[in-house]
Amino acid sequence: MLERRLSRIQEALQRASLDALALNPGPTMTYASGLSFHLMERPVVLVVPAKGRPALILPEFERTKGEACPLKPTLFTYAEDPAARSATFEAAAHQLGLPGRRVGVEPLRMRVFELRLLEAAAPGTQFLSAEETITALRVTKDEAEIERMRRAVRAAEAALEATIPLLKPGMTEREAAAELTVQLLRAGSESELPFPPIVASGPNSALPHAVPTDRRLQAGDLLVIDWGATVEGYISDLTRILALEPVDPELARVHAVVLEANRAGREAVGPGVACGAVDRAARQVIEAAGYGEFFTHRTGHGIGMEAHEPPYIRGDSDETLAVGMTFTVEPGIYLPGRGGVRIEDNVVVTPAGCECLSSMPRELRGVA
Amino acid sequence: MLERRLSRIQEALQRASLDALALNPGPTMTYASGLSFHLMERPVVLVVPAKGRPALILPEFERTKGEACPLKPTLFTYAEDPAARSATFEAAAHQLGLPGRRVGVEPLRMRVFELRLLEAAAPGTQFLSAEETITALRVTKDEAEIERMRRAVRAAEAALEATIPLLKPGMTEREAAAELTVQLLRAGSESELPFPPIVASGPNSALPHAVPTDRRLQAGDLLVIDWGATVEGYISDLTRILALEPVDPELARVHAVVLEANRAGREAVGPGVACGAVDRAARQVIEAAGYGEFFTHRTGHGIGMEAHEPPYIRGDSDETLAVGMTFTVEPGIYLPGRGGVRIEDNVVVTPAGCECLSSMPRELRGVA
Repeated sequence: MLERRLSRIQEALQRASLDALALNPGPTMTYASGLSFHLMERPVVLVVPAKGRPALILPEFERTKGEACPLKPTLFTYAEDPAARSATFEAAAHQLGLPGRRVGVEPLRMRVFELRLLEAAAPGTQFLSAEETITALRVTKDEAEIERMRRAVRAAEAALEATIPLLKPGMTEREAAAELTVQLLRAGSESELPFPPIVASGPNSALPHAVPTDRRLQAGDLLVIDWGATVEGYISDLTRILALEPVDPELARVHAVVLEANRAGREAVGPGVACGAVDRAARQVIEAAGYGEFFTHRTGHGIGMEAHEPPYIRGDSDETLAVGMTFTVEPGIYLPGRGGVRIEDNVVVTPAGCECLSSMPRELRGVA
Repeated sequence: MLERRLSRIQEALQRASLDALALNPGPTMTYASGLSFHLMERPVVLVVPAKGRPALILPEFERTKGEACPLKPTLFTYAEDPAARSATFEAAAHQLGLPGRRVGVEPLRMRVFELRLLEAAAPGTQFLSAEETITALRVTKDEAEIERMRRAVRAAEAALEATIPLLKPGMTEREAAAELTVQLLRAGSESELPFPPIVASGPNSALPHAVPTDRRLQAGDLLVIDWGATVEGYISDLTRILALEPVDPELARVHAVVLEANRAGREAVGPGVACGAVDRAARQVIEAAGYGEFFTHRTGHGIGMEAHEPPYIRGDSDETLAVGMTFTVEPGIYLPGRGGVRIEDNVVVTPAGCECLSSMPRELRGVA
């Protein structure tokens, strides 16, 4: 599988007139090579030339990790003394013939640290954004990737099911979020969650980017629960609404509108459809109900190895969907000072339209 | 407190002949301003000039977060369209008079993404490493910072105490690590742990950078438990050794040697002492016992807002310790294929020498 990915990357580099791609630790390095390193004070750089064998620059004490890489990259290792690094970078750049060439980098991932080492090792080289090239490769997922996302959805759903019976009036948002985190780990999520779970109650539920506070859950609250799991490096990202009776009748109506908008958004998904059309399908339902000004964000964002990645489901986007793209559909209505509702699912584009990876009921659900 | 930090930062910039410091989201931005943002596809940059009021570049929808910052930075916000960002960066650069000046950045933190936006907005400006300047400020902790680290140590110790009764032969390393993670959260750690806990059993304990596997705990295993908590953004990082009887007599001896090396390392700590002297104090004990070649890493590293930061306790380092520096003391012996021992504590340099923040017994401890 990695061999096939390498070929696709090299073909894409050639089409983009790039002589090589330089990657530091992160999802794309893992995608390209299976290698996983933390971003630390020691540089690790994988250089994929447009033709030929990749090179991996890494600390000597990590050599065995490099040797285990199925791509069999040429290894360039350096000793602990930071001064030793320049020579290692120069040796790699020389062997790959980088000086004076066009090398792609990921601007959102590569640090000034690695850039300066590469610049010094390859005089006259242009370091250019390869973001579009990489996105075009990573944006459509293969079946193995989608299966991991299905498992990340199942783990997240199991975790919320296990958490709901534990929620009680008087508990703080922060305590509820900690309990949900515990249940995510028990349900099989990796400990690096895609993001810390959000539990936003009562008026706090009107904040689209709420962070759990010490506010205590109380009668009459809606709870926005926005959470996800990580399984083998792939994530889920869901939102459901819980209620502590009695429910404000307008918020119940708002919930019904968002549920309909979520359905309309999912039903609009299909290959060849513009991202903007999915956003508009969801938004139209909310506008028709008179709440347009309270839907203050885009309808969704791509997910996969990252919690926010392309495609972005914005009204002004004419990017078209393709089979294998995976993203969230998450319309919301936020009434300031009063409460909010967001319902978020994870979908994958299929030849027939759309598979929804998440199946947990979307109805307003009461808490003890 | 933030006002005082701002003055210290500005004085340090003047001494380093830097006209400004540009920070993207991360520990130093939080240290300087209290602001906390995720590193996302939308740029956020805090610019601290050597004199005068800081500026904050951020998305319009995050404006309230900027307004809440006690430093009262001048806000430069941009709308959702990515094309709008350049004008906002230019306005900020113009108002601060950045073009043609010397601006410090953090190479290990700033991405090519923010660098390119700044370069385009401030033609002729040199972007230079401010790493040493920032390190000199952050490396000594004040009492409020040390108190957070004490709490992070207490949370970690409570979590391991709660986990030990749950460990059983037949459990996998991965399950044991998940249980420890759960207990860290229950003990009050933030969900962003400093690193995922390590549980390495039997022969796996001989790998200094082990990752929990599906290997099952069994009689005769030593377990290396390397774990830590996060409290209000500050971390702890500890290692203790558990044993499933019967213990290999040589590994018991190795444990006693490492315990002595850990004590010798801690006792060597004091203001004005070279980092190298602390490393050598610990290493000497291990060498004298005939295990020198099996102590394959440095004796420690700084901790604080990050799990690895200066000072680095390396044998070749003549950097001297100062009151308020906080770091790990973690000698180890690793016998390949057989087993390993590391004992790690967290210390702070005091006028009298050293306060050890961790107090959990260091003896080899049996598991049910």
